[in-house]
Amino acid sequence: MQRLHQNARRSRAIIVNNMVYLSGQYADDTDTGIQGQTEQILHKIDVLLAEAGTDRSKLVQVAIWLKTMDDYDGFNAVWDAWVVPGHTPTRACGEVRMADDDMLVEIIAVAAL
Amino acid sequence: MQRLHQNARRSRAIIVNNMVYLSGQYADDTDTGIQGQTEQILHKIDVLLAEAGTDRSKLVQVAIWLKTMDDYDGFNAVWDAWVVPGHTPTRACGEVRMADDDMLVEIIAVAAL
Amino acid sequence: MQRLHQNARRSRAIIVNNMVYLSGQYADDTDTGIQGQTEQILHKIDVLLAEAGTDRSKLVQVAIWLKTMDDYDGFNAVWDAWVVPGHTPTRACGEVRMADDDMLVEIIAVAAL
Repeated sequence: MQRLHQNARRSRAIIVNNMVYLSGQYADDTDTGIQGQTEQILHKIDVLLAEAGTDRSKLVQVAIWLKTMDDYDGFNAVWDAWVVPGHTPTRACGEVRMADDDMLVEIIAVAAL
Repeated sequence: MQRLHQNARRSRAIIVNNMVYLSGQYADDTDTGIQGQTEQILHKIDVLLAEAGTDRSKLVQVAIWLKTMDDYDGFNAVWDAWVVPGHTPTRACGEVRMADDDMLVEIIAVAAL
Repeated sequence: MQRLHQNARRSRAIIVNNMVYLSGQYADDTDTGIQGQTEQILHKIDVLLAEAGTDRSKLVQVAIWLKTMDDYDGFNAVWDAWVVPGHTPTRACGEVRMADDDMLVEIIAVAAL
């Protein structure tokens, strides 16, 4: 079991049993709208998966939390361009408010190594 | 890693590490109330699990999203009749709005092979 | 596959593939505020993990549902004191209403053995 970027509250990633689990990822700069926040999050996921020794083509399970479903199409435009054709994960998308009211989207991902 | 029913956005199921992960399942005909929507979803889960080579008696983890907790008893009436006695999964049920305002329930499931 | 504390609706824990999955845990005595509810839940998780042969230092993935984000700091005060330094899990925290309106927090956890 290997933990990445751990602080006193959480690890950003844990590698165990040939899988990598990521903490919910959110945008650091929230002044960027749904597309900007989504791009930042997907970039963070790319970086974490690379550190764990895998990549977005091995994603298994993704949960997407949106502050409002009004952003569903905006989110999907960025998502659809990011996933690897022929290697898309399972996913679910629900309306959930997050820790900070400026957060429009948060993504929880699990990938295989 | 094997993906079932994949399109450019998601796979409906992924088999990896002796487990099968399903995308959030929802009803195609939303004019059927909570019990009708739940029945459709559980049928879709049965079909996906069968394609993956397993069945509802091997469910491990289930997340249930309801549009409103007013439907909690209606959902559970169908659920309780569907699960296999002696083989019930872990579950959690929360109030979450979904992609389409007509969706009353969505289920995210993980099963063992 | 081993199930713990099963009834006709759900198992409280399932051990499979070197992991243990827990059902969403909530407080039995809801008249205790966010800190009291969190303490009860974390104690229940400790007990279930012990029964499964593991402990909180092996937690992998935790989802936290809060009725209101106003309780975020109150929750984290208890959480931060409970997790094992150097062994913190991945986590995500969202605002989700639960089965009973008195429930302020519910936690869904997955641990390694």
